[in-house]
This record gives sequence, structure tokens and C-alpha cells, in this order.
Amino acid sequence: MTDRVPDAAPELFAVIMAGGQGRRFWPRSRRRQPKQLLAIGTREPLLLETVSRLRPLIPAERVLICCGRELAPEVRKLLPEVPEKNLVLEPTGRDTAPAIGLALEHLRRRVGGRERQTLVAVLPADHYIRRPGRFRAVLARAARAADRRGLILTIGIVPDFPSPAYGYIRPGEPVPGENGVLRVRRFVEKPDPRAAKKYLQQGYLWNAGMFLFRLDTMTAAFRRHLPEAAAGLDRIGAAIGGPGEARVLARLFPRLPRISIDYGIMEKADNVAVVAGDFGWRDVGGWDALYRLLGGEGIKNISRGPAQFVNSAGCYVESEKLVALVGVQNLVVIETPDAILVLKRDREMDLKKLTDLLDASGRREVL
Amino acid sequence: MTDRVPDAAPELFAVIMAGGQGRRFWPRSRRRQPKQLLAIGTREPLLLETVSRLRPLIPAERVLICCGRELAPEVRKLLPEVPEKNLVLEPTGRDTAPAIGLALEHLRRRVGGRERQTLVAVLPADHYIRRPGRFRAVLARAARAADRRGLILTIGIVPDFPSPAYGYIRPGEPVPGENGVLRVRRFVEKPDPRAAKKYLQQGYLWNAGMFLFRLDTMTAAFRRHLPEAAAGLDRIGAAIGGPGEARVLARLFPRLPRISIDYGIMEKADNVAVVAGDFGWRDVGGWDALYRLLGGEGIKNISRGPAQFVNSAGCYVESEKLVALVGVQNLVVIETPDAILVLKRDREMDLKKLTDLLDASGRREVL
Repeated sequence: MTDRVPDAAPELFAVIMAGGQGRRFWPRSRRRQPKQLLAIGTREPLLLETVSRLRPLIPAERVLICCGRELAPEVRKLLPEVPEKNLVLEPTGRDTAPAIGLALEHLRRRVGGRERQTLVAVLPADHYIRRPGRFRAVLARAARAADRRGLILTIGIVPDFPSPAYGYIRPGEPVPGENGVLRVRRFVEKPDPRAAKKYLQQGYLWNAGMFLFRLDTMTAAFRRHLPEAAAGLDRIGAAIGGPGEARVLARLFPRLPRISIDYGIMEKADNVAVVAGDFGWRDVGGWDALYRLLGGEGIKNISRGPAQFVNSAGCYVESEKLVALVGVQNLVVIETPDAILVLKRDREMDLKKLTDLLDASGRREVL
Repeated sequence: MTDRVPDAAPELFAVIMAGGQGRRFWPRSRRRQPKQLLAIGTREPLLLETVSRLRPLIPAERVLICCGRELAPEVRKLLPEVPEKNLVLEPTGRDTAPAIGLALEHLRRRVGGRERQTLVAVLPADHYIRRPGRFRAVLARAARAADRRGLILTIGIVPDFPSPAYGYIRPGEPVPGENGVLRVRRFVEKPDPRAAKKYLQQGYLWNAGMFLFRLDTMTAAFRRHLPEAAAGLDRIGAAIGGPGEARVLARLFPRLPRISIDYGIMEKADNVAVVAGDFGWRDVGGWDALYRLLGGEGIKNISRGPAQFVNSAGCYVESEKLVALVGVQNLVVIETPDAILVLKRDREMDLKKLTDLLDASGRREVL
């Protein structure tokens, strides 16, 4: 919080959450090559597309990338236009609230006393967006409301279909004077298919995990709703740029509470609002989502690489070699140089079990 | 037929039918590497095991190998102990009757007038036999009956289970004076599962496609039941060893009627008998049969190569790379250097469709 009077137009920054673990697209994604670094249903790697689609609204100098330390070399290679100081490296994964908090500490130091004029969009690195222009327009509208009202804005996606794979947002009253901005009545967990249908009829929106706020607004929210995390982050922030930064970070960050921004702040705060967006959004969550993203449905087979299908339906194939599918339904078959996955499309929740097993059986080299 | 009086003990030859096309074990089997040249459920390639298990009853010098011209180099490499002259090379595939007829022409020239003293066992190259000693004993018994009675003997396998994948033999009256030899009442096509059960109760035997006869007996059978083929074979036989052999063979062999020995002769002849054999026989007909041969049944997963199974059952995997199966049932997954097959175990009849498609779509290099 600052008591300086705003002395200039607000500046919009982005914090890109690129800390994913890379299990849901195994064997293509790996520990050192999680999905945000891969082109999945896209021309360019997801992270690169995420940064590119912000231009000209948010140039690369104002984009912070939040990821694990071990991904830094790959991220720098992928995004040479993002300054090195914009990489916010977590020493260990503590879920989204500590990660965002750390990014905000970096930002705080950078903007000095201009917290009131600093807007921040928190955006996942691994989403697919078909219409970037529309997306930027929605961000701009959210930024305006965040700036003028001190609200925490979420982007709520207008749903295409009653997906049970996403969380939902129930919108409430309009925010006066802010066209298309509604108060959030509540956040809803991933529903069962019947509830999802009901939500669609009632105008609920998908929770895409995109937030936009003034830096001072979120600082206050951390202090209020996550005081323990806020205190730890304060101490880390004080060390940033100093000689003890690495040591302090390594010691304090792992002790921050492991909690998501949704649970820790969004569901508790009373100043949360939503802007509805309709820009061809998909969370490319796993192989099944990718199959659907690429137009797969029902009996359609989709392949990237040479494939031959006989009496087979609903399959997705990625390979270098010829893959022949005979008499099978709803399979995902992925060939990489050192592993082949054959997955029933509706069983991707078992991929975690698989990678755990591979880890436990001494096959960490393929993870 | 000869009118010379037998002047020595009969000699037993083998004619190994090695002309398979290699489609049912695709992608491991190929045109140039059909299953008889591969170790499938065995230590050595099936053809090598077929020849080896005849010793000492039939040494390699008396083993003729009947196969397509294009397999000759591989066969010679695999069986250096079989003399080159023992290779009977078909210019084109015309089913088993012409192939056997051609082999018998070679044999006829070789034994001169001793057709009456020449016994011939016709044996498929691609069977699995667990107890070779018992097998040779059955062959010897069949040879004795063939020699003394001028019968065409078949080996009937005592069935383990009501398989719908094999043809059956209905045995009839015992042949007097020949212990364990029965007249054949009829040959039965592959039955549906209910009929198969009935056959088992009624003591039917599996038709393993193994025959044993005196050369003069089969010569007479060809003349009587396949006179057109016999005439063509006579002309080919007359050219064998002469300067026009290749030309005559190339011209006449493709015109021989395309018919199996079963349809063409066995089902018509009235001098057919059967010896029951119980020597751990399996026709390794395809991937499903191999899975069962290796002890697979029900929910068991079997793998050759690195594999990891999660919530999967009844699968068979062969690979170099790690193959991970997640949430799948009853699949066959085969990786080779240039192709991967994913096959529902009970749909292997579609493999022919697959290889036809690959051929038609210009992928002959993987066949």
C-alpha cells in the first residue's frame, strides 16, 4: 500500500504460470520438457504462444515467467525477448499462491512505490486460445475495472458444452459503471455431468485460472487471507536483489503454505468480479482434451504421423513410425524415441499412477 | 507306379511346407521374413525347429523344403545342413496340392524306381511341438501303416480344448493289424464353439495338416482325384534337371489348379487313415495363439521387452522401447524398427485387411 498519489497511467504486467510438471502429456512431456514447452495442438510451444498473444497489450519486457529453477534454460531459449530478470524461479513447487506471491515480490521491487499504478494479469502458460484479439480485449476490460475499482478480476469463459473437466464461476450482480463486469457469487468445483448441464443453463462460466488485479489490491488480499504466506513473502521480498537472496529464498520458500490462489484467496475475498470471455479457449489438459481440440469426437480417428486404421474409431495417434490400429476404440497411441504409450482415452487420470510406477521402478530416465 | 520288386527297407523323407506369406504375425513377419523364419514362442526359428525335431528319424539330407523362390536365400542360411537340391522352389503360390505335387516330382526323380519304398511325411513349417520324441513315435507308427497298407495317413491331434480355430477329423473303424490307426470317416471345417464342444465329446481330432504316405500311393491319388494337376506336374517333372527346367516350371506351374491338398485329395480319397498324436502341438496361427501358447489367459499380461501395465489386462507386448499400457484390455502391441501394431486380440482376422490396405496405399516396404 502506498499513500503516493497516482502520477501516471497504470502499467499492465503479466505473470505467466509455467510451473507444470509434465505428467499429463507423457511420454511427449517430460520433467525437463513439460507441456508448456511443447507445441500441443498449436504451431508454437504453448508458452511461446501465451507470451506472443499478449502483444501489443503487454510487451515481453513486462512479462514475468514463473517456473521451476530447472526449466530456466529451456524457457530462456524459447523466449529470448523476455529479459532474464523477468524469470521468477521457484526453488520448489508450493502450488499457485506462493508462486504468484513470489512473482509479486519481484514486481514490487521493480515498480517501487507505484503499486497503485501496477496492474497484473496472472495467466497459465498452457492454454489454447483461438482468438487472441478478442482475448486481449477482455484483458483490457478487466484491467480497466481492476484499476478503477480495486477488484480482483477473473476471466470467466463462456462454456461451449457442459464439461465436467473444468471448475465453474457463478456470476452475480453487475458492477456499476463497468460494462460486462459482474460480481462473483461463488466458485464451483469440477461438477458431475448432470450438474455441469444445470450450470450451463444457469449461465455459469468456466474458471480458466486467469486473474487480473492491481498490485496493491493483491498485496492487501495476501495480508488478509494468507497472512502467514504474506509474512514469509515479505522476508523473501526484502532479500531480493541482495547478497542473501538465494539463501533466503531456498530457506523460506519451501516453508510457505502449499495452497492454490483459488482456495487461498479467490474463494475468500469479497472483492472478486468476473468478465466473461468468448475467445475460443481450451485448457489442453491432457490427451483426451487434445483429441477434442483437434476436432476429434465420436468415431473420428486423428493422427499426426503415419497411421493406418482398420475397424478402429475414436483414436488419436502421434508417431514417427507407422502405427497400425486394428479393431480398437478410443485409444491414444503416442510414440516417442524412448517410449510408447497406449492409453484408453477416458483413463488419462491413470497417467499419474503410471509415471509414479515408472519412477518407483527405476525408470526415471523416461520421465 | 513301378513294377520293380521292393529291394530294400523303405526310406522316409519329409516335405516341409514353408510357403507362408507372413501376414498373420505382421509387423514381425514380413514378405521376406514370414513366421516360419522367426522364433515365435520358440527358441529357434520355427522352420529350424521343424527340421531339427525330425532327427534322428529323418536326417537333413532327406528333408525337402517347399517354399517360394524369394525365400530361398534365407532358408539356406537358416538350414545349411539341408542340401541345396532339397529346396523345392515354387515360382508362385498355388496352394498346397501343386506345391506338394512339385515336391513329389523332385522326389520321384531322386529315388528312381523306388517309389514303393519311398515314404513321405508332409509337415507344416510353422507348428509348435512340445514333445518331439512323442511326435517322432507317432510319425514312425504312421509310416509303418502307410508302408504296409498303402494308406494316406494323417496325424490327428488329441484336442486340449474345444478350439474353433482348427479343422477336425472324425475317426472311424480301426485298421486291422495297425495299432492305433483308424480310418478317417470325414474331415470337418473349423466349427463354431458349440459344435467344437460336441466334437470334443465325440472323440474328434484336430487336423494338423500333417500327412504321411508312400510316394506311389500319392502319385495314384493325384492321378485319380486331380488329373489335370497330375498331367501338368508330369510335364514339369520330366523337365526337372534338364536345360528347360526353369522355363517349363515358370510356364506350367502357375496354370496348375489352385487347390489345397485337403480339398483336392484328402477329402475325396477312400484310403485315408489317422493316427492320434498327443505331443503338445499348437498351430501358432497368430498373435492371439501366441499369447495363449505363452501361458496367457484371462487377465494375464505378457510382455517381451520393457513394458509397464496400469489397469490393463489380457495384453501381449513385444518391443524394444518401453511400452506403457494404461486402461486397456486384450490388446496386442508389437513394436518393430519401422512399424507398431496395436491390435484387439480377438480381431486378428482383420490383419489381412490391414496388410492389403498398406499394400494398396504404397507402403509395401513395411510388408
